[in-house]
Amino acid sequence: MRLEILPVQGIGDVTEGDDLAALIAGAAPWLRDGDVLVVTSKIVSKAEGRLVDVPADGPERLDARDRILADETARVVATRGTTRIVQTHHGFVMASAGIDASNVDKTRLVLLPVDPDASARELRAALRDRYGLDVAVIVSDTMGRPWRNGLTDVALGVAGMPAIRDHRGEVDPYGNELFVTQMAVVDELAGAGELIKGKCDQVPVAVVRGYLGTPRDDDEGARALVRDASMDLFSLGTAEARVAGLREAATLPDRTGPDPADPAAVRRAITAVADVVAPGTVFTHVTDDEVRAGLAAGVPGWPASATGLLLGAAPTPLDPADLVRFGADVQRLRAALAAEGIGSVLLPPPGGSAASAALAI
Amino acid sequence: MRLEILPVQGIGDVTEGDDLAALIAGAAPWLRDGDVLVVTSKIVSKAEGRLVDVPADGPERLDARDRILADETARVVATRGTTRIVQTHHGFVMASAGIDASNVDKTRLVLLPVDPDASARELRAALRDRYGLDVAVIVSDTMGRPWRNGLTDVALGVAGMPAIRDHRGEVDPYGNELFVTQMAVVDELAGAGELIKGKCDQVPVAVVRGYLGTPRDDDEGARALVRDASMDLFSLGTAEARVAGLREAATLPDRTGPDPADPAAVRRAITAVADVVAPGTVFTHVTDDEVRAGLAAGVPGWPASATGLLLGAAPTPLDPADLVRFGADVQRLRAALAAEGIGSVLLPPPGGSAASAALAI
Repeated sequence: MRLEILPVQGIGDVTEGDDLAALIAGAAPWLRDGDVLVVTSKIVSKAEGRLVDVPADGPERLDARDRILADETARVVATRGTTRIVQTHHGFVMASAGIDASNVDKTRLVLLPVDPDASARELRAALRDRYGLDVAVIVSDTMGRPWRNGLTDVALGVAGMPAIRDHRGEVDPYGNELFVTQMAVVDELAGAGELIKGKCDQVPVAVVRGYLGTPRDDDEGARALVRDASMDLFSLGTAEARVAGLREAATLPDRTGPDPADPAAVRRAITAVADVVAPGTVFTHVTDDEVRAGLAAGVPGWPASATGLLLGAAPTPLDPADLVRFGADVQRLRAALAAEGIGSVLLPPPGGSAASAALAI
Repeated sequence: MRLEILPVQGIGDVTEGDDLAALIAGAAPWLRDGDVLVVTSKIVSKAEGRLVDVPADGPERLDARDRILADETARVVATRGTTRIVQTHHGFVMASAGIDASNVDKTRLVLLPVDPDASARELRAALRDRYGLDVAVIVSDTMGRPWRNGLTDVALGVAGMPAIRDHRGEVDPYGNELFVTQMAVVDELAGAGELIKGKCDQVPVAVVRGYLGTPRDDDEGARALVRDASMDLFSLGTAEARVAGLREAATLPDRTGPDPADPAAVRRAITAVADVVAPGTVFTHVTDDEVRAGLAAGVPGWPASATGLLLGAAPTPLDPADLVRFGADVQRLRAALAAEGIGSVLLPPPGGSAASAALAI
């Protein structure tokens, strides 16, 4: 058994309206059933007319590019300097929504295909219907990734095979069940295609031979590769998520319970602010039910959902500025509690004491 | 031109102390100069004795695993449930530090090689010195990644070729210079190797033939692929970075200037808290130099670095609890300013007014 990776040479420049199936079949009369075609998304975009006119240079070019990027963006994921990592309308997370200025006139930008899975299906169907070839098609593009330098080619669209090869449920020779081994084989195939494309000039299509038996249609396509942001541990850039945390601190809602806060977590929150609050300020966590019930009885507006009480005592003597500072320190503690996942509500102090405050948690 | 990907079959089970060069050369007498060997890290680990004994099941197994993971971890990047994404001592960011329980007895765990680049160099040197073979060696492992479902194989170590192929400075046929095209070809080679390894049972080594001309030693190895956390837009998980923002809000340092704050950003911060502060609270941004100078003269402790002033006016009448609430609201505004990148210092109010506060920004 072996795989071969072959370049399709001689396709030449692709322009709007070109018939990719004819170009590829003409350049590679040696194609066989079961081959996997790895097609650079750029020629798909060009054939489909996914080009926009832009000024060749100057601020007008940058403005036009920004407008186009906004159109191609479903959600901004991270920004640093002029780099913008976005989620496209397809769901792919990539720099500049995959908009590309290379291998095109200086007055045009190339956008990603509108529906790369559909592009792959159409090309597969055209090769089958008009040339009698039963092949799988991958539409590929070059992407960066977190944590690792260098780019790799991955799949934007696929037809004729599933995007993922699922080993779950298989058992290794030692009897261990394989739990998480879903391999993104179309990404590996796209990368394998890049190896030969990158070695040659102007080779937008590679063929992987020997991988597939008989192609089969798979409705899900490369959408199977898109992880929903809600499931992703890295749905936002670090800086953006940090800012989200600061904004959350600015707008902390009143929230308590329903589960009693872990006393160790409350201690961590109190410790976190110990060095920044006014000297002499003391925060005390009251967890004992009876004490808390007694205190709660003295606190107007005590929320029924509260499962604990944090008492703050300001240093005395107090003037109005000290009380403002004390309030700021209580809010610091609320942010520290929120960092531990503990909601809180600022209440008037028990017994109306000027030098104290109460947080229901 | 074409590439071939060939499986090395018949290597069998690898155990501590095994001579990988002998096993591979014996199983693949057809190896040639210029071949790229993609070697699954697990057999490298096993040969190098990177195995640890653990209980076969129960809480003791989990405890042991946690201890081992802590040892293999340089930095925790993200956690959700039992999933822990960490940066290893090599710098790789991966789930569970690459610790693996598959393809090994139930009472052992396999750790990553201590230095996969060194492992690759040693294997390359052994094949050259003892078998006269001039090949490149990639030590590969399977990893997940943000944003995309499915795993791919990538390189942990490499010898005999650079990890990255640099197209920067090249010019495309349209005259556009290629700026950012550094391809992580060893990751694509590792993925290509996985395609054949995943199709066969128990094939821990694949050979990519036709990619390299003559191997050459490269000192940097796969370390070239490790992006420093300080350069990474995704150095922390979204949840972890959000918590970091909350912690930052809890401990906001006194900081002002040196550049005047963008008035639009200050307005955004004031707007962000408008709905959550006590009704009637008013925040005003004072930017005019003379007004500011006059106000600053009335504010004790006004920092020389301050380039603006935010005045807060609490609703009147005030009792002590209202002042505490007002202080909490001022701290909310400080967090909102920090989210805009604007530092601030809480000062006593100008003229000692009980119902006001001043923030130097």
